[in-house]
Amino acid sequence: MNKADFLSATLAGRRIQPMQASGSQFAPVNIALGKYWGKRNIPGNLPTNDSLSITLPNHGSTTTITASETDLVILNGKQVNPEHAFYRRLFEFLDALDGNRPRLRVETNNNIATAAGLASSASGFAALIGALNDLCQWQLTDTEWSILARIGSGSACRSIANGFVRWHRGERDNGKDSFAQPIDQPMPNLAIGLLTLTDAEKPIGSTAGMKQTLATCPLFNSWPQFANASVERIAQYIETGDLIALLNEAEHNAMTMHATMIATNPSILYWQPESVATMHKVRALRSDGLDVYLTMDAGPNVKLLFDRRQQADVLAAFPNAELILPFEHA
Amino acid sequence: MNKADFLSATLAGRRIQPMQASGSQFAPVNIALGKYWGKRNIPGNLPTNDSLSITLPNHGSTTTITASETDLVILNGKQVNPEHAFYRRLFEFLDALDGNRPRLRVETNNNIATAAGLASSASGFAALIGALNDLCQWQLTDTEWSILARIGSGSACRSIANGFVRWHRGERDNGKDSFAQPIDQPMPNLAIGLLTLTDAEKPIGSTAGMKQTLATCPLFNSWPQFANASVERIAQYIETGDLIALLNEAEHNAMTMHATMIATNPSILYWQPESVATMHKVRALRSDGLDVYLTMDAGPNVKLLFDRRQQADVLAAFPNAELILPFEHA
Repeated sequence: MNKADFLSATLAGRRIQPMQASGSQFAPVNIALGKYWGKRNIPGNLPTNDSLSITLPNHGSTTTITASETDLVILNGKQVNPEHAFYRRLFEFLDALDGNRPRLRVETNNNIATAAGLASSASGFAALIGALNDLCQWQLTDTEWSILARIGSGSACRSIANGFVRWHRGERDNGKDSFAQPIDQPMPNLAIGLLTLTDAEKPIGSTAGMKQTLATCPLFNSWPQFANASVERIAQYIETGDLIALLNEAEHNAMTMHATMIATNPSILYWQPESVATMHKVRALRSDGLDVYLTMDAGPNVKLLFDRRQQADVLAAFPNAELILPFEHA
Repeated sequence: MNKADFLSATLAGRRIQPMQASGSQFAPVNIALGKYWGKRNIPGNLPTNDSLSITLPNHGSTTTITASETDLVILNGKQVNPEHAFYRRLFEFLDALDGNRPRLRVETNNNIATAAGLASSASGFAALIGALNDLCQWQLTDTEWSILARIGSGSACRSIANGFVRWHRGERDNGKDSFAQPIDQPMPNLAIGLLTLTDAEKPIGSTAGMKQTLATCPLFNSWPQFANASVERIAQYIETGDLIALLNEAEHNAMTMHATMIATNPSILYWQPESVATMHKVRALRSDGLDVYLTMDAGPNVKLLFDRRQQADVLAAFPNAELILPFEHA
């Protein structure tokens, strides 16, 4: 199955046919506490394991789509050249959605700190599907929205709700059971601190990195089982409200994901000196009694995880951290 | 079995009974190209996997033992206090060798750059057994020497010869098939560059680190099989003289060992910012066509591995590296 096949399985005959002047949608970014690393199917973005994220409310992408004389992309107020990777990825996806689609004007505004290593592709693809749903009045269910966003960019399937969201890996070849669902259980004391440590270029993108990990990491075959059990533990800590156990598991989960990258051949090393310095600093603070943990994605920057009641101490230690309170949303 | 039981199985009735005024032995340090990480038995230092090292000729420990009125330790010319960890570890081992031993004066001189993260315990225990063998005229075979050194400090079993040395993990519970043997095949172009990056304290010693890895690393169960296959590949590259393939495998082996540490809970992170900066520098040099690789042990410092014919370029990039040519020995 190629991308178009995966999409049409869920579109079920829906086409890109505007039913109103324009369609619009906001979608938030998310940070995985139980990571997604490893695809069992590449065009369908079907994962080897469950993952679980926390949404950053009000941080994300707003996309507006209108029918147009020519294809046009406006990203953060600027027109994007057709040779640009963003433009090509977007219209390749729209072509896969509907090979006979009308020309479209796609305007996307991201209000997120991309320098801190927050991937805008997750919120971007979730917003894109939402805007098409609005434009064409597809009446997508949340599950269908999540599946279509997943085919655009795996972790986009989690950018469909606030709070904790769990992506069920699914078992089926057509991917119709691989989608995310919100967990209706807040943890109001969870706080996040975004650190922008370096703008060092990533050595490899995440799709290629996952592929290399599956092909050459001698430790990878232990990852899916660990990752699923780890997400299960995180879900239990959410249910019982055990914030510290959750943060500890999230850090262990992220370090284990990075271990699978480091053990590939050649090794994938997203860490920079500043990343390791921050890890040691976080540990030293923990030794001093502060309950601060960290997570990292496929990049050099660090996201702090802590109890908002210790916010003053954490921000004193990391004055440049951007504070996010994920359960403080309108 | 405790340490004394493991020792007596190989001592076969030998006692610490001086047959001459003093006994003396030099033993070299070694750097593992295929790492030892994981004990299937702790008092016997029985490993989960084979390992393979290169000896640093003329770098190591010289130990001289004489009968004495009182126990006495002279380390690098200075008398060591009985409360010192080095003193206690040494005499606990001598007591386990022979509970009725005479009082001994043990003088050890290390001529190695311990700041660069070269463990002196390997050369130290190999020299100690050799000095006792000389003092008491035990007529140990090389295999017996290697086994007794292993019980003192695992990787000491490899510090018994120059060149490449392979430690066979063995299968037996009494450890009598777990010893090292030299590989009689030189690779004269192999060069090593020792970098002293930082004197940051280690977060955890290697015995405790291995124990924590076995207990909590979700990826560890894939390590022994990988490590054995990796040592097999290194042995083949030695046989066929494929230096670059050997160096690449050695780096992959070291990174994979560190991955098992990073994936423990709590994570064991021997790396410091300088370690990661050096990794990125080594990769950048490789991208520029220089065949330089690295290995790391349970510490923050990096050992460069390269072809001596590229020595000038490597030392230009790392002017502080201490050059070792392991096959240039008297």
